[in-house]
Amino acid sequence: MEELYSKTTASMQHSFIREILKVTKGVPGMISFAGGLPSPASFPKHLLAELFSNVITQEGDDVLQYGASDGDLVFKNIIKDFEEVPYLSDDEIMITVGSTNGIYFFTRTLIDPGDIIICEAPGFPGSLAAMESCGARMVGVEMDEYGMVPESLKVTLEKLISKGESVKFIYAIPEFQNPTGRTMDLNRRRAIIEIAVAFKIPILEDQPYRELRFEGERIITLWELARTEFNDPKLVTIAKSFSKILGPGLRLGFAAGPPEIIKPMVKWAQKSTVSPDCVTQRVAARFIEQGHMHQHVQNIIDLYHPRRDAMIKALKTHMPDNVYWTNPEGGMFIWVAFDKSVDTDKLFARAVENKVAFIPGSKFYPKGIMKKNELRLNFSYSNEEQILEGIRRLAGLL
Amino acid sequence: MEELYSKTTASMQHSFIREILKVTKGVPGMISFAGGLPSPASFPKHLLAELFSNVITQEGDDVLQYGASDGDLVFKNIIKDFEEVPYLSDDEIMITVGSTNGIYFFTRTLIDPGDIIICEAPGFPGSLAAMESCGARMVGVEMDEYGMVPESLKVTLEKLISKGESVKFIYAIPEFQNPTGRTMDLNRRRAIIEIAVAFKIPILEDQPYRELRFEGERIITLWELARTEFNDPKLVTIAKSFSKILGPGLRLGFAAGPPEIIKPMVKWAQKSTVSPDCVTQRVAARFIEQGHMHQHVQNIIDLYHPRRDAMIKALKTHMPDNVYWTNPEGGMFIWVAFDKSVDTDKLFARAVENKVAFIPGSKFYPKGIMKKNELRLNFSYSNEEQILEGIRRLAGLL
Repeated sequence: MEELYSKTTASMQHSFIREILKVTKGVPGMISFAGGLPSPASFPKHLLAELFSNVITQEGDDVLQYGASDGDLVFKNIIKDFEEVPYLSDDEIMITVGSTNGIYFFTRTLIDPGDIIICEAPGFPGSLAAMESCGARMVGVEMDEYGMVPESLKVTLEKLISKGESVKFIYAIPEFQNPTGRTMDLNRRRAIIEIAVAFKIPILEDQPYRELRFEGERIITLWELARTEFNDPKLVTIAKSFSKILGPGLRLGFAAGPPEIIKPMVKWAQKSTVSPDCVTQRVAARFIEQGHMHQHVQNIIDLYHPRRDAMIKALKTHMPDNVYWTNPEGGMFIWVAFDKSVDTDKLFARAVENKVAFIPGSKFYPKGIMKKNELRLNFSYSNEEQILEGIRRLAGLL
Repeated sequence: MEELYSKTTASMQHSFIREILKVTKGVPGMISFAGGLPSPASFPKHLLAELFSNVITQEGDDVLQYGASDGDLVFKNIIKDFEEVPYLSDDEIMITVGSTNGIYFFTRTLIDPGDIIICEAPGFPGSLAAMESCGARMVGVEMDEYGMVPESLKVTLEKLISKGESVKFIYAIPEFQNPTGRTMDLNRRRAIIEIAVAFKIPILEDQPYRELRFEGERIITLWELARTEFNDPKLVTIAKSFSKILGPGLRLGFAAGPPEIIKPMVKWAQKSTVSPDCVTQRVAARFIEQGHMHQHVQNIIDLYHPRRDAMIKALKTHMPDNVYWTNPEGGMFIWVAFDKSVDTDKLFARAVENKVAFIPGSKFYPKGIMKKNELRLNFSYSNEEQILEGIRRLAGLL
């Protein structure tokens, strides 16, 4: 039947990360820093159990019925308050089936096959795959300590545009980036926005980890910065996720941006999901409305912060010289770079034999960039003891 | 920003049905036969409230975490048992965010822009819009009392193929079709499959209403028929929905078909939703596993059957001569055809003034077919009293 496949289906890539996760799952004694999983200890089970029961009992006639494709209005309004953007109109925000869903709809709205999206290199493969499934070609821009390098972004854009390429948007995770854990500082944010304004290229800002800040000052989002300092309310669309602060199984996220973008995104939602789960939306709404979110996020930070510290400490203790790692102020990931002689694709097989897992860095680069000496470590899923032991095992293989 | 839209986004149609529903919603005294809504009285609120609470308390670590893109394995296995297809392999079935989601992924798997899908005329606009969003051109085949007319299907296919068109699949709702309420009998099912086999064109069988049979014998699905009598297990993919038997707000459906189709559909899911809501999937699994579904479906039938009877009786009592209507053995809809002089698009405005609503028949035809003298009535949402009064009002306008 493969002869019937559409062109996009026929060319669809396999997910290497899923393969890696399969190899490491359920192996006794395996310490996995590979997945991007929140800790189950972070799930507010008791509150959610109670809220699901209450919402269905009290609001079941409403939430078990068909709901709006742009999301539950109750939830939208509560998010606006929680995010301190009460002035947003209803057609500037939509609820999505997780943030990947918002990223997919944004891409579907703008991308014709062959169009170009600028992304961070390394970047998050889940988003890159969603974009490529719409026919986008991903062009990576190198990063430094503060994220995408503005000079490189500018040169890349100039080169592409002079070749007549259709560059549709810039995709970035400014906070605790996946995979590097890096955060754009305020100057970098300004520099990136200036370039986007100059080239008239919109930005898709992905913010899955923003709430998980362990230390340092919260920085204004690209989205807020463009609206306020740059007086350009249409430049940035933001995609946010409840996966890291409530539970990924609930599949909830939202997107906020100009009505010209959100409205067609809602049309794509109508045609592919009809709406997100209405019961779950209302439960999340009541969770926030009843004031549980701030304390709950603090609980997650109290869980992850010592795990990051444990991982950094273990890296310092066990890693040989000439190994570099990022020191993220939050989120879930640390990025490690070795001497160029180390090939982490090869290291992976030996690591799994020794019951420790990571994702090789090569999996995070868009086509055309081949870097082999890096890897991503997740510190949210394993406890401190596992982290110390896992890093010790890993360092022993070098 | 519209200049940045992708071609598919720029050409996307507005949903007339959504506009109609907006006009009729919340108007005091309005009796609406327009929507396709289940009755809130059919929602098993007490059971669901209890199950959500139990599942999160007992299985929260699992179901609040990221889940598989093909769906919760527990739920998949319970569905296989419930549908009496325990022999299906795991890559022949996937859970979807409602059945429209399955229809979208199926279409995305097979359709390149410009490819053709054969559909019933009249057909369900929600599915047709999902298909058109992937760039499909819809070609309608006329229906009689038993659904798509085989001779017309054959002639249509011959004509298209002789013109070199790429016909990718046939889409049908064989049971209590939306909008007509008609059901394909066994002979018709055989005839349609024979043609599909002869032309080597797969079928997408949409079965949202199958469980809601008030009378008459259950008929074997196209999917089962192709697998058994025709020994062609790859011909038919089936899309099913829990919207009419649990609650549309839960956004749950599933698709079953050959691995060659389900596997790429799962890849599309990975890239656009990651997975359906894992909590909701497990709740639906426990609902079925604990044996509630059969009684619950009987309760819905006991609710809708008298409503259908009331509507048929009211049509007989109030409608003038020369009006035809279908007499569905189940489902949610009755199709009414008037004398050619009646224009139901015009009738709609007068009906809404008189506080009764329906969907004009013209909204159910793919491009190129223009029929104005029909309309769709929903009988699941209004109670008997409202049904009698609403049909009286409608007939009074003729």
